[in-house]
Amino acid sequence: MTDTTITEVEASLADLTLEEKASLTSGASFWYTKPVERVGIPAIMVTDGPHGLRKQREGGDHLGIGDSVPATCFPPAVGLGSSWDVDLVHRVGEALGTETAIENVAVLLGPGINIKRSPLCGRNFEYLSEDPIVSGVLGAAIVNGIQSKGVGTSLKHFAANNQENDRMRSSSDVDPRPLREIYLRGFQRVVQDAQPWTVMCSYNRINGVYASEDPWLLTEVLRDEWGFEGVVVSDWGAVNERVAGIAAGLDLEMPSSNGVTDAQIVAAVQDGSLDESVVDVAAGRVIDLVRKSQAGAGSIEGPLDVEAHHALAREAAGRSIVLLKNDGDVLPLRRDARLAVIGSFAAEARYQGAGSSLISPTRLDNALDEIRTLADGEVAYAQGFSVAAEVSADETARLRDEAVAAASAAEVAVVFLGLPARLESEGYDRTDIDLPDDQLALLDAVVAANPNVVVVLSNGGVVALPFAEKVPAIIEGWLLGQAGGGATADVLFGEVNPSGKLTETIPVRLEDSPAFLDFPGESSHTRYGEGLFVGYRWYDARKLEVAYPFGHGLSYTTFAYDEATASVDASGDIAVTVSVTNTGARAGREIVQVYTSLPGSTVQRPVRELKAFASVALDAGETREVSLTVRRQDLAYWHVAADRWVVEGGQYAIDIAASSRDLRASATVEVDGDVVVLPLSRTSTLAEVFAHPVAGPMVQAALADMMGSMNGAASVMPEGVDMMQMMGSFPIGRLTMLSGLTGDGGGVSAEMIDGLIAMANAAQPQA
Amino acid sequence: MTDTTITEVEASLADLTLEEKASLTSGASFWYTKPVERVGIPAIMVTDGPHGLRKQREGGDHLGIGDSVPATCFPPAVGLGSSWDVDLVHRVGEALGTETAIENVAVLLGPGINIKRSPLCGRNFEYLSEDPIVSGVLGAAIVNGIQSKGVGTSLKHFAANNQENDRMRSSSDVDPRPLREIYLRGFQRVVQDAQPWTVMCSYNRINGVYASEDPWLLTEVLRDEWGFEGVVVSDWGAVNERVAGIAAGLDLEMPSSNGVTDAQIVAAVQDGSLDESVVDVAAGRVIDLVRKSQAGAGSIEGPLDVEAHHALAREAAGRSIVLLKNDGDVLPLRRDARLAVIGSFAAEARYQGAGSSLISPTRLDNALDEIRTLADGEVAYAQGFSVAAEVSADETARLRDEAVAAASAAEVAVVFLGLPARLESEGYDRTDIDLPDDQLALLDAVVAANPNVVVVLSNGGVVALPFAEKVPAIIEGWLLGQAGGGATADVLFGEVNPSGKLTETIPVRLEDSPAFLDFPGESSHTRYGEGLFVGYRWYDARKLEVAYPFGHGLSYTTFAYDEATASVDASGDIAVTVSVTNTGARAGREIVQVYTSLPGSTVQRPVRELKAFASVALDAGETREVSLTVRRQDLAYWHVAADRWVVEGGQYAIDIAASSRDLRASATVEVDGDVVVLPLSRTSTLAEVFAHPVAGPMVQAALADMMGSMNGAASVMPEGVDMMQMMGSFPIGRLTMLSGLTGDGGGVSAEMIDGLIAMANAAQPQA
Repeated sequence: MTDTTITEVEASLADLTLEEKASLTSGASFWYTKPVERVGIPAIMVTDGPHGLRKQREGGDHLGIGDSVPATCFPPAVGLGSSWDVDLVHRVGEALGTETAIENVAVLLGPGINIKRSPLCGRNFEYLSEDPIVSGVLGAAIVNGIQSKGVGTSLKHFAANNQENDRMRSSSDVDPRPLREIYLRGFQRVVQDAQPWTVMCSYNRINGVYASEDPWLLTEVLRDEWGFEGVVVSDWGAVNERVAGIAAGLDLEMPSSNGVTDAQIVAAVQDGSLDESVVDVAAGRVIDLVRKSQAGAGSIEGPLDVEAHHALAREAAGRSIVLLKNDGDVLPLRRDARLAVIGSFAAEARYQGAGSSLISPTRLDNALDEIRTLADGEVAYAQGFSVAAEVSADETARLRDEAVAAASAAEVAVVFLGLPARLESEGYDRTDIDLPDDQLALLDAVVAANPNVVVVLSNGGVVALPFAEKVPAIIEGWLLGQAGGGATADVLFGEVNPSGKLTETIPVRLEDSPAFLDFPGESSHTRYGEGLFVGYRWYDARKLEVAYPFGHGLSYTTFAYDEATASVDASGDIAVTVSVTNTGARAGREIVQVYTSLPGSTVQRPVRELKAFASVALDAGETREVSLTVRRQDLAYWHVAADRWVVEGGQYAIDIAASSRDLRASATVEVDGDVVVLPLSRTSTLAEVFAHPVAGPMVQAALADMMGSMNGAASVMPEGVDMMQMMGSFPIGRLTMLSGLTGDGGGVSAEMIDGLIAMANAAQPQA
Repeated sequence: MTDTTITEVEASLADLTLEEKASLTSGASFWYTKPVERVGIPAIMVTDGPHGLRKQREGGDHLGIGDSVPATCFPPAVGLGSSWDVDLVHRVGEALGTETAIENVAVLLGPGINIKRSPLCGRNFEYLSEDPIVSGVLGAAIVNGIQSKGVGTSLKHFAANNQENDRMRSSSDVDPRPLREIYLRGFQRVVQDAQPWTVMCSYNRINGVYASEDPWLLTEVLRDEWGFEGVVVSDWGAVNERVAGIAAGLDLEMPSSNGVTDAQIVAAVQDGSLDESVVDVAAGRVIDLVRKSQAGAGSIEGPLDVEAHHALAREAAGRSIVLLKNDGDVLPLRRDARLAVIGSFAAEARYQGAGSSLISPTRLDNALDEIRTLADGEVAYAQGFSVAAEVSADETARLRDEAVAAASAAEVAVVFLGLPARLESEGYDRTDIDLPDDQLALLDAVVAANPNVVVVLSNGGVVALPFAEKVPAIIEGWLLGQAGGGATADVLFGEVNPSGKLTETIPVRLEDSPAFLDFPGESSHTRYGEGLFVGYRWYDARKLEVAYPFGHGLSYTTFAYDEATASVDASGDIAVTVSVTNTGARAGREIVQVYTSLPGSTVQRPVRELKAFASVALDAGETREVSLTVRRQDLAYWHVAADRWVVEGGQYAIDIAASSRDLRASATVEVDGDVVVLPLSRTSTLAEVFAHPVAGPMVQAALADMMGSMNGAASVMPEGVDMMQMMGSFPIGRLTMLSGLTGDGGGVSAEMIDGLIAMANAAQPQA
């Protein structure tokens, strides 16, 4: 198998036989689509990503998991997302697109924007956030960046794929509001803002239906509601029933089925159970994708400028680091400080996660060398611990003693802790959020010897920080890609002023986390029992303490917020402005966050929800007016009964914040609501009927006597309670129960109720 | 309308026309079934309850909510349940049956045994517990007690009716395991142990289907699985579509439909959409009920022995009181102590809840008078606060000052706090668990004046206790019925040694409670998102502090537990024994609780679950060996894939405890498990296939080569991770994806997989 040269595609559907069209709807191999050489349709190549190109080396295995050609390993999503920086993310996307084009690849399989529902998900390092706005905005920036180079992306994993356990069949059982407002909102944003060339449907089921064969998901929502124009491709092996899949809107099955499912599609058309037009649509989309990719794939001449991309990877990594704590300004370090660097991650970087996203990097920094490069003083190193699965007690003690000795002799001990690679990966989930015991014990020993400790963390998923009160400084280094070592050194010495903020809450204990009791489910079902209350929405609503809140991150400088304004603009969006001043002595960046809430809402809502953010660079002393836009559509909630988005009218509170728990300025703005009048029915309650613009006044008058006499007779009711408090939830159709019982043979008949309903519905158009 | 004299029913179905049979399946009025005078079938009367008889007075209103004839008001379920005393509850049941029989009533509409899912449910005072074993065991005792007098009961509200909000249409959306293990388990217990004459289906929907027309609930589960032999009656007005209801197993609609639904049934039979045999079955059951009631209703000669029943009500109330706290043995009070009794509930008892269970008591104690009766010393009284909805600030201040003055002059202040009646009722839910602010402020003022304070609470639903650390003693008096005042005095002075324990957790904050974020739902749906983790199961699993744990309750004496034994008996149940000694100086009762757990279970489980309990009376210094039985069926979990109860084999931990968080002795017992072999299918994972007794060895051998080569090729996998960790969740049917890709054209075909599955399933019978 060799790279197929992409040529102009002149063929159209009309030139193709049914068999040829069907053949286009599944792969030729692990990484290639099928050509139709007879009419000049070439194969195109797609490759794993998404924070680098994982193009499998020629002549490797046939299973898609072998070595890949070198590519720049940018920070995985857990890192890059922490930048909250649309411009930076877009530039990284451009670089990814360039590498994709140089390698003659048509589609880079990313970004992954699934919500981090539980810190235990093994693949969280590939995802951006627990929040859909962060995921959607940054996801769109990546897609736009990559696609600006004429190559495609694959927005994944669509949808509600938030765990690895039993991932190929588990059903994510999610109610309509959280599904729409949390799990789909980010996908909607990326589709509407960036039109990814492909969307990758996920392995799992949603409310019992495989994503790969869900017509509601793949057609109604994705195309009809959101306007997606590209190809839906299966995650590798996600097809359950191919014919059901293509009928639902799954255009391209990957990888190859060895022709088996193509034949099923042909047979289904021939026996009349599948309309040929369905195959036409899918094959046509694949041809469009092939045609689109001709301009980009192979369009950029190699070789790759390795140095330039490594420099960008270092910039991105620097912007990804989150300074969690910095008591007494122990950071940045003095160049001439006598340092002890401790922990094996300093010498052997943990810089990316395992699985399909694993990149063969072009270069690889390690923090120890980079620290030594920047330092003027002495830099001792001690391994501190071993990441091997089995380590003898003697070895552990020896490593610890060595580290304690190094720390004792130093002014500052920089201790690199983290998750060994085997503890998190695509394919399985974690069972706890703890760092290994030997690392925690090492840290205790180091702190006892020298309290002047900076902890640097390397981890893809959130870890508990039981030592947070014991050390003066903590750097959350996530997984930072191939240049993370240099970036870490930059931040330690203040070459880079840290600006990253948390896109996910760090809880005090796993037991506090929203999905603790229903992750990862059992019997191939996972109930999303926390509903809307994912991430900070949970901790805030339940008033739980957290280790570090969503949106938190420190800087070596400080920022002051002035008063904010908020107003509805001509398009209905909310324009927010706030002046931010760098009140410290060095340049820095602040991530300004906008949260909204609607006090007195008629539906359940989180305490506050992120709706906009900006990364703002400010010189020392500089003030800038920051403008942010809260889109009207982002204020909408999913109205379950109306089955659509609805913006509720009212006085919205706008909080401008440095983190979800550090509100700095606020404003309010009056928003006009969408009009929703649901049709009345026999199951409408008296309270609903009373509130109806047409039926309300009539029924209130008609029932006044009855209610009055019931109030009088109601000895079973507590003093001070109105009959409506008990009877408001009574369906109007059940009033017949009280009829005939009034003793006079009169009362309310079913016909009278139906007549009232019909009249009210006719007089008041539903909207 | 007058009481119908019950005579021998000679008629049978064959004597009746279709119209007559249909007429028997709905009520004649609010409280009467229809007679068929032509063939001598009388009407029977049913009345509200359940902690007393609410028989509506003749000539009252026609809506069923007017005055009722006097009856003994026993402690509502919230109180009586706290006794954990099967014998006492049975005796109260007998007394209720006697009153029912005297009044010529056929069926007393109770008990209510719904699970207290949230402390906010307005009707929690009518329910027994957050635990299904407590609810089931005590529910069966009430039913057996009442029915021993020849009258019937109505086990309600069947099922998953755990809130009042939107109660007539809201869907309780519950997953299979919590539905079976938490919400239905108690109903199953009562049906199987006590055969209530009727079961009352609830208003709500369950997973979208009205309980009143759910064939799965009313027939498959209730009759086919559990063996229920009686009549299913609708809650009053719970019928949605009558024909669907009778087809599902709803025998008797109440109250009257004025003949409308009878005609619908006749029409459905005539147009062939309903089989006449369905009507025969329902009418036949109603006739059986009428026949059964002839022996009992009216069989006991009046008048009621009011004094004897009042005395029983006082005994029951005394056994219902829970002593939450008693620091420094401030209780019991000395007879000659100089007391200040403070709080309006002392003079005007809050002793029952509002709604259909509201009884006109035969007598009514108040605590103040009863305290004065027992006291030798001076007993001052101050109202302290007003329960009126609107109170002026001046009045509040005046009442508070008066109370402070009384407290200052006393040795001990006994402060009666509680929920005003309007804050909890059938028909609506609470929105918080707080006592009114003015009561809390009063208590603060009293404590400041005299720290020697005993708080006595009157409340149907749990209240937060922000003052728990500030006062030395707290008595949870719930709602105690008409003799609660005397019982409270008995406990205060030590005439009765308190022995009640909590059947529901008192949380620190409402925000900690399991259903906090999805109670009471919206859009007519309530997601039971906490799953199995209701009540203490939640607080334990999430390691949350509570104010007072499930099962907690103090005594004026102390109890010591010796070592326990546990063994499986001949029937498969677990026999548990433990010696308990009264180590104090006065007689008392201890509620001994047995919790089980299964470390290493293959399914999700609560930390521990109550499975048995006993109320044991012990004289000072007495030791008794207590025997308890954990039924094998109570160890079972609901196996979702097998759709049946399964006892998992293994080493069960048996904890004998004084409360859910006060474990006193433990044992382990090996239990043989039920055998479950699920048929293999294409969606079976490799891990499941490997574990299959037949297919496992074959497939392991067949795949050894492939897995080995993948391990070798798997550069994307972290060091130290086995291929099975990533691939174990791969469905065997998807192996075709890897076929054709091995390069040699070989591999695994769909036919090979199907053949293997068929062979394995044929060789291993599923069980």
